[in-house]
Amino acid sequence: MGGGFAGVRVARRLGRRGDVQVTLIDRANHHLFQPLLYQVATGELSEGQIAPALRGMFRGQESVRLVLGEVDALDLERRVIHARAADPVEIPYDTLVLAAGSVDSYFGHDEWSQWALAMKTLDDADRIRSRILAALEMAEETPPGAERDAWLTYALVGAGPTGVELAGQISLLTHRVVRDEYRAIDPASARIILLDAAGDVLPAMHPTLQRRAHRDLVKLGVDVRPGHSVVGVDSHGIDVDGPEGRMRIAARTIIWSAGVQAAPLAHVLGDAAGLTLGKGGRVPVGPDLTVPGHPEVFVVGDMADLQGVPGLAPAAIQQGVYAAKAIDARLDGRPAPKPFRYVDKGTLAVIGRERAVADIKGLHLSGPLAFAIWAAVHLFYLVGWGNRLGTISRWLWSLLARNRQERVISVSSLVSDAEADASLESLEAAQRD
Amino acid sequence: MGGGFAGVRVARRLGRRGDVQVTLIDRANHHLFQPLLYQVATGELSEGQIAPALRGMFRGQESVRLVLGEVDALDLERRVIHARAADPVEIPYDTLVLAAGSVDSYFGHDEWSQWALAMKTLDDADRIRSRILAALEMAEETPPGAERDAWLTYALVGAGPTGVELAGQISLLTHRVVRDEYRAIDPASARIILLDAAGDVLPAMHPTLQRRAHRDLVKLGVDVRPGHSVVGVDSHGIDVDGPEGRMRIAARTIIWSAGVQAAPLAHVLGDAAGLTLGKGGRVPVGPDLTVPGHPEVFVVGDMADLQGVPGLAPAAIQQGVYAAKAIDARLDGRPAPKPFRYVDKGTLAVIGRERAVADIKGLHLSGPLAFAIWAAVHLFYLVGWGNRLGTISRWLWSLLARNRQERVISVSSLVSDAEADASLESLEAAQRD
Repeated sequence: MGGGFAGVRVARRLGRRGDVQVTLIDRANHHLFQPLLYQVATGELSEGQIAPALRGMFRGQESVRLVLGEVDALDLERRVIHARAADPVEIPYDTLVLAAGSVDSYFGHDEWSQWALAMKTLDDADRIRSRILAALEMAEETPPGAERDAWLTYALVGAGPTGVELAGQISLLTHRVVRDEYRAIDPASARIILLDAAGDVLPAMHPTLQRRAHRDLVKLGVDVRPGHSVVGVDSHGIDVDGPEGRMRIAARTIIWSAGVQAAPLAHVLGDAAGLTLGKGGRVPVGPDLTVPGHPEVFVVGDMADLQGVPGLAPAAIQQGVYAAKAIDARLDGRPAPKPFRYVDKGTLAVIGRERAVADIKGLHLSGPLAFAIWAAVHLFYLVGWGNRLGTISRWLWSLLARNRQERVISVSSLVSDAEADASLESLEAAQRD
Repeated sequence: MGGGFAGVRVARRLGRRGDVQVTLIDRANHHLFQPLLYQVATGELSEGQIAPALRGMFRGQESVRLVLGEVDALDLERRVIHARAADPVEIPYDTLVLAAGSVDSYFGHDEWSQWALAMKTLDDADRIRSRILAALEMAEETPPGAERDAWLTYALVGAGPTGVELAGQISLLTHRVVRDEYRAIDPASARIILLDAAGDVLPAMHPTLQRRAHRDLVKLGVDVRPGHSVVGVDSHGIDVDGPEGRMRIAARTIIWSAGVQAAPLAHVLGDAAGLTLGKGGRVPVGPDLTVPGHPEVFVVGDMADLQGVPGLAPAAIQQGVYAAKAIDARLDGRPAPKPFRYVDKGTLAVIGRERAVADIKGLHLSGPLAFAIWAAVHLFYLVGWGNRLGTISRWLWSLLARNRQERVISVSSLVSDAEADASLESLEAAQRD
């Protein structure tokens, strides 16, 4: 299983028993609180504040073993996992829970990923932060004209919660936080373009909230363009199809938040179990979250294909808790729990600094009240009191001081080849071809 | 000039005049509070807390222009700097202040740098943190024996303040913070070996404090070995010459804090001005901190070769302030200030969490009182109230909670080629040859 929202819930609950050996395998040594990742990408929070060490979380649970590695093969007959850790290892299991989450989907255009930045991991967030800030530096050193304007243009593809929240934050960062810090350019003139093929932003929310979020984004200075689908991406911009026909948008910073697909582990399982994968490469599971024909194999979180269940953190948490309960019951010889049912507790999205929209069981909230709910919910789910306090104090600080504490441009994250010449030149060079 | 302690002081003061154009050139977009870098390397503080954005620091000083780039040539005749920024640029000057600081010196064995980790920049600190934590993960997955022991051995070369502080923190991190978090290994058995060719630790301090620091380090579980000089470094350990003859220490994590030399810019200046560089490639300067024959060129901070002036932050600050005053006086037609004199306000080093040694004008303090002075001085010099408050709360938190907030292993920082397979395997592979 993985160390995301679903996997951690399963390991926590089974670890509490103490009488079963639990092995948690993840590529990263941290749990990632993905709903706040965009704040790392825009310099508000530090990495550690949203990414507690998995070992720290399971310190007291002796029966939970953590393996920093990656699963590359499954043998469902022998009930053995092949993983690459320090060395390749074989890990036997009685019950297997797969919760490897999702990765960005470029709609069959994987080559776009070299220019349209993904936003799934901490490394991604680091890179986006460095690129957002470095683009301003490039603009400052570029004479006025089309080239400078392209450095001052940020194109975000996909207006779901991540795209909306990121667009709001980039707007705040460029238009307000760093406004007086450049001499040649005016960062307030930066264009933040938020595109989506759907009819409006936050397509999964109620139309009232869509309109409200749209209006709040425009007030923040975001150029919102629903009904535009991307047909091309390169180092200097994107091509879009919209109501006015095909158009070129010159932008040197392109961020992808348009869609996700199941982690590649789904294909490994699909091959091993002879399954046909569902939409976005997700694994079809029964109402008990197990794989057809393999009651000992659970698939939970973004990897599972379940009608009516969105790829959001609360859904992953509920699936993780369900799988843990089901395994618990089996171990104790109790009857299996009732089929899994997703309880929609509502969805939230923040716009800028103190506004949000909330869609809670038919109740449509917006403005500061929605923001207060958003803040409370996110703090509640953050792991560790230290991170909660630290996060609150950062938020208060940036309200008061109009600054951001994490503004380091990490040169090694700018270009994929860290051996390359460690200067802004390498960004220019990497993007030139 | 650079954005370190000296360069920032010069720019700040001249920027306050408003009637002269000041250009600050740095490779990084942040000022780095180097005395606390070791806390980033050991997961205590976040990057942003010790590295405020230079643009934020100079927000209100319209006459200060920042260029994110690197100086690669000087034309002293035409008074022009050649720098590589977004594109190569030429920057003319009337007065030039060089303050590019220092880089690690491997005593003529530059090839050692691939295994002995440097500790000068934020990227370095990131890499050291990731390597310290990844070594524990490797040990956990390695069967008992010599190979596991080598992963559990940290060798630090150089027992100046950086080496001493880092050794204390690595000891706290492995022996206390993560002690109960592993199942196969006991992190409390990790060996932290601190080597120095000198007769004892902190060679620049008074012998009483050396002995005290030595004793405190041993109490913390550090294996202190003065009188040992390194004669070889490779991927699996180091060879040392000591009182017992030549010895091999098997260690998979090797950190270099043995010596520094002036930044390569010193050579550029040396060639341009026809100067012979001093010890450690430093630039010989007159008592007014200018280059002989070039009264318009100042060299300050770690790059300057001045008898009796150590390569410490307070010395750099004093030189920066002096150069700014001298330039100020010239611009106003006032007489030049008296020759530069370094005022030794004392030196400090922290050992572990609440102990320190302080050598203040002949007063030798140690224990908690020295720690209190250390904390007060460092907080005073940290830039920005947000960073001060954040740092205090992190320190209090780790006293109370036995945890560290920044424990992310950044895979891209583990290996120089980020394209390499993003897993622990790549660390193993990179180190295997």
